[in-house]
Amino acid sequence: MSVRKTASPNTNAILLMHCPDQPGIIAVVTDFINVNGGNILYLDQHVDKEERIFFMRVEWDLTHFIIPHDKISDYFATLYAQKYAMSFNLYFDNYKPRMAIFVSKMSHCLYDMLARYTAGEWNVEIPLIISNHPDLENVARRFDIPYHVISINKENKEQQEAVELELLRKNKIDFIVLARYMQIISPEFIEKYPNKIINIHHSFLPAFMGAKPYHAAFERGVKLIGATSHYVTTELDAGPIIEQDIVRISHKDSVDTLVYKGQDLEKIVLSRAVEKHIDRKILVYKNKTVVFN
Amino acid sequence: MSVRKTASPNTNAILLMHCPDQPGIIAVVTDFINVNGGNILYLDQHVDKEERIFFMRVEWDLTHFIIPHDKISDYFATLYAQKYAMSFNLYFDNYKPRMAIFVSKMSHCLYDMLARYTAGEWNVEIPLIISNHPDLENVARRFDIPYHVISINKENKEQQEAVELELLRKNKIDFIVLARYMQIISPEFIEKYPNKIINIHHSFLPAFMGAKPYHAAFERGVKLIGATSHYVTTELDAGPIIEQDIVRISHKDSVDTLVYKGQDLEKIVLSRAVEKHIDRKILVYKNKTVVFN
Amino acid sequence: MSVRKTASPNTNAILLMHCPDQPGIIAVVTDFINVNGGNILYLDQHVDKEERIFFMRVEWDLTHFIIPHDKISDYFATLYAQKYAMSFNLYFDNYKPRMAIFVSKMSHCLYDMLARYTAGEWNVEIPLIISNHPDLENVARRFDIPYHVISINKENKEQQEAVELELLRKNKIDFIVLARYMQIISPEFIEKYPNKIINIHHSFLPAFMGAKPYHAAFERGVKLIGATSHYVTTELDAGPIIEQDIVRISHKDSVDTLVYKGQDLEKIVLSRAVEKHIDRKILVYKNKTVVFN
Amino acid sequence: MSVRKTASPNTNAILLMHCPDQPGIIAVVTDFINVNGGNILYLDQHVDKEERIFFMRVEWDLTHFIIPHDKISDYFATLYAQKYAMSFNLYFDNYKPRMAIFVSKMSHCLYDMLARYTAGEWNVEIPLIISNHPDLENVARRFDIPYHVISINKENKEQQEAVELELLRKNKIDFIVLARYMQIISPEFIEKYPNKIINIHHSFLPAFMGAKPYHAAFERGVKLIGATSHYVTTELDAGPIIEQDIVRISHKDSVDTLVYKGQDLEKIVLSRAVEKHIDRKILVYKNKTVVFN
Repeated sequence: MSVRKTASPNTNAILLMHCPDQPGIIAVVTDFINVNGGNILYLDQHVDKEERIFFMRVEWDLTHFIIPHDKISDYFATLYAQKYAMSFNLYFDNYKPRMAIFVSKMSHCLYDMLARYTAGEWNVEIPLIISNHPDLENVARRFDIPYHVISINKENKEQQEAVELELLRKNKIDFIVLARYMQIISPEFIEKYPNKIINIHHSFLPAFMGAKPYHAAFERGVKLIGATSHYVTTELDAGPIIEQDIVRISHKDSVDTLVYKGQDLEKIVLSRAVEKHIDRKILVYKNKTVVFN
Repeated sequence: MSVRKTASPNTNAILLMHCPDQPGIIAVVTDFINVNGGNILYLDQHVDKEERIFFMRVEWDLTHFIIPHDKISDYFATLYAQKYAMSFNLYFDNYKPRMAIFVSKMSHCLYDMLARYTAGEWNVEIPLIISNHPDLENVARRFDIPYHVISINKENKEQQEAVELELLRKNKIDFIVLARYMQIISPEFIEKYPNKIINIHHSFLPAFMGAKPYHAAFERGVKLIGATSHYVTTELDAGPIIEQDIVRISHKDSVDTLVYKGQDLEKIVLSRAVEKHIDRKILVYKNKTVVFN
Repeated sequence: MSVRKTASPNTNAILLMHCPDQPGIIAVVTDFINVNGGNILYLDQHVDKEERIFFMRVEWDLTHFIIPHDKISDYFATLYAQKYAMSFNLYFDNYKPRMAIFVSKMSHCLYDMLARYTAGEWNVEIPLIISNHPDLENVARRFDIPYHVISINKENKEQQEAVELELLRKNKIDFIVLARYMQIISPEFIEKYPNKIINIHHSFLPAFMGAKPYHAAFERGVKLIGATSHYVTTELDAGPIIEQDIVRISHKDSVDTLVYKGQDLEKIVLSRAVEKHIDRKILVYKNKTVVFN
Repeated sequence: MSVRKTASPNTNAILLMHCPDQPGIIAVVTDFINVNGGNILYLDQHVDKEERIFFMRVEWDLTHFIIPHDKISDYFATLYAQKYAMSFNLYFDNYKPRMAIFVSKMSHCLYDMLARYTAGEWNVEIPLIISNHPDLENVARRFDIPYHVISINKENKEQQEAVELELLRKNKIDFIVLARYMQIISPEFIEKYPNKIINIHHSFLPAFMGAKPYHAAFERGVKLIGATSHYVTTELDAGPIIEQDIVRISHKDSVDTLVYKGQDLEKIVLSRAVEKHIDRKILVYKNKTVVFN
């Protein structure tokens, strides 16, 4: 949840970490924060019993923290990460992550995200929108966000993706949201943004992977349709799932009504996933996510 | 919904039919009932626009119906079914359909159905339970229902299924419910009960078909698990879907907790499907169901 | 569902009616349509057994209908409505109903509706937005819709509502949507738009009527929060309910997160209700709705 | 979730505690467990920011714990509880809590719980069932559980409740489940089992408190019905809510079908709450619950 603090001038630190499970990790980390003057605001932890991995997200107020912000990561790495074989990331909530949106022709997910962004609900910057079609330029213009049309076909894919990557680099983009972007991204591109590209697929994965899931759902005669947001990996529709939801349908529905009903699912499921990502609440391990709330 | 009438001594007729769509079918059928003194209690219809097929379920009170019960089917066939190329079934609600339950080792679906049956919620008779294991005999005994252990392996399958079929015949079984029966039924058996064998599969089909769907769901890292009740066809887990539902899970769940959480889904989804079948509310057409409510 | 037909140049008629239940009504109405050359596209009916009232919605293609459009209502009234004591409304889907939106300071419902409107999903015109605050003028401007600030307090309520009513009259408004409009409308105003003002209340009514329902929900410690769209009547939050939905919460939620999570519910529940209204799928009888799908 | 360990011979300790929030509590408690040789299996914590209360549930393996089981509580009280103003309860999972079920005439909740109990899903003993009606004696007999009919009216209430309390005492009952028990329990009785009587109410509280909630829901025309499990307090239907859920209904439903559809909700919602109680996952504070999962 990304309810923006308006009054508080404080900066918080957010630590996401995982390591082989062993007794005492929580005590060690909370002790590090406490003895250095940090005030823990949230602590969530999870143990994957099968993999024997410990996951934690801890957020603390830095007001009276005695270690300078730019030294915390070093200190933590030196004192603990090596000793406990931790992988960790440290974030500060006074930095707004920078997000690019990729779209094609459907506007519902784009509108939903821009409405939240404009209302100040998300701690994020959206410096640009990229599309392989000009159709949604009018939406971008309504919200005063630069819209780049970069059409892609089999022949020009490599060079056009190079154009996109240059745009992302120039705009210092931290992560990318594919908001019903109907174009497969190359492995080379994906590997530059590992666990940093969020896609919305219009089915309850792993059912109906690939193209035209609503047609496939109609054919199969299912009684529920779904949507799935996930990080993009090089294997199509097979990346770590962040969020899923479904809506009940019936024999009365046609493919058209499935498409239409699915849109509300898609936009809500995608926005929930993007929000979790912005709020640094997702850990990825072996193609699965730990999503704290 | 199968709320049994206790006071009413009246018999109702239920007509399930489908035919190529054309103007005036509703008028023709309702007119037939009205002019012969029937009082329509429920009428549900559906047009499959893609297949151009008209489906209808109509239920009427026979108290003042002037055609004798055993002649209605003949009259309707002669007067309308041929003319409009209708497929139809006629039922009377004073007949209790006879249902056999097949189980293996898990009791949750069995208990859920027997509790409803014993409480008088379902207009059905359950003359026997068949299992490939002795484990649930104690459950059957609690409810005074004969329990037949018919163990099956690759070698004896044909002859053991013959034993089962003979038991079903003797008990005048109308339809079969596989309540987590962990044994694949032969095509020859299935073809004797077309759209009359209801199975519960512990996933949101078509995801995770086949064995161990909870393990597969855990591996994939989905955020929902599901259950699907469907009619059994000769293609495994691919028959017409009657009902589906899901429950939300998270990274905190293990395979064990998925199995456990799934049990509540399975029993409710299966019982809903069985109830719809008992109440003659399901029409099957080309591997899909029309389920009226 | 409001999937707009793009190709079809045909006009459809939609009849919404209710009358005391009696045998043969369906046959009478469908016969009227058939014999005059209409092709029935959808027919939904419902009998309220307790009130003994028959409800029907029937939609038919007028292409070959031999009664002129502007005479259908007269003919139907003369031939049937009187005889069967029917109340009915007749609509043509080539007319776009005209909708006014009232807002205060929160933008989520407004954005959700304008996104659907702009994408052409709804068969409606939105000629104006009225607010008691200037805050959302920027949203209206993004979508090029006139925004009228009409501030209201106890002293000026009567005259300000007169200004509003005049604006609605000039703009030929058919119905009004209160999209989190935080101002109670006078009975005199409401009575001018009977069952034509749709409100969204941020609770699962009848729980938490009145002000600050999320605070009340938090205080009570509920495990679900809800939203309810309903027609506005002179009794506060007590009008006919059109649609409701809920989302699961937990002890981890604060009032702030309830408010935030509730927003997604509110916008979806309100938009579903508005869509049903636009598509002429709602019948109101004795403070309850029949909503066809 | 109450998946019973079959293989493990180990005993676990479960500590439920709350205290005024202050830095370092987690570190203090986990340190206590770690230095004494305990292996933490689960740790869940929650801070109520409004009340400034810290809640925690921690479960650890006692295999190598150096403090004897019967001393842990004393030590913890002496070393920490006083210092941090903690309220706490300590449980051992090798003790099966003893549960009494109170019923009236409806069997669905009773069957659901007994099916789970008989299948070994719950770590609980059910030594007796008490009812104000003889109707469900046959259910109790099926499961070989003593069934006591104690009819209650205005005149005999005090003495009959004395009989019940004596039965509970003799059977060393730890907590009571009201499984659609249609009788109001006296404040004197309730105060003997604070937060130890679980009720199921057939509405989404606080909507439709008191008698006949389905009739009230039907009258109001809601589009969802619900069920709520809660601890019983002396204020009717106003105790701390443990679990709620809803099911979608429509204008097609009658009071009878609401009652029927509600039964599946009631049994699942009640069983979930009972399970959380058995598994020591519920903390109560100021008429609200913290329910860990």
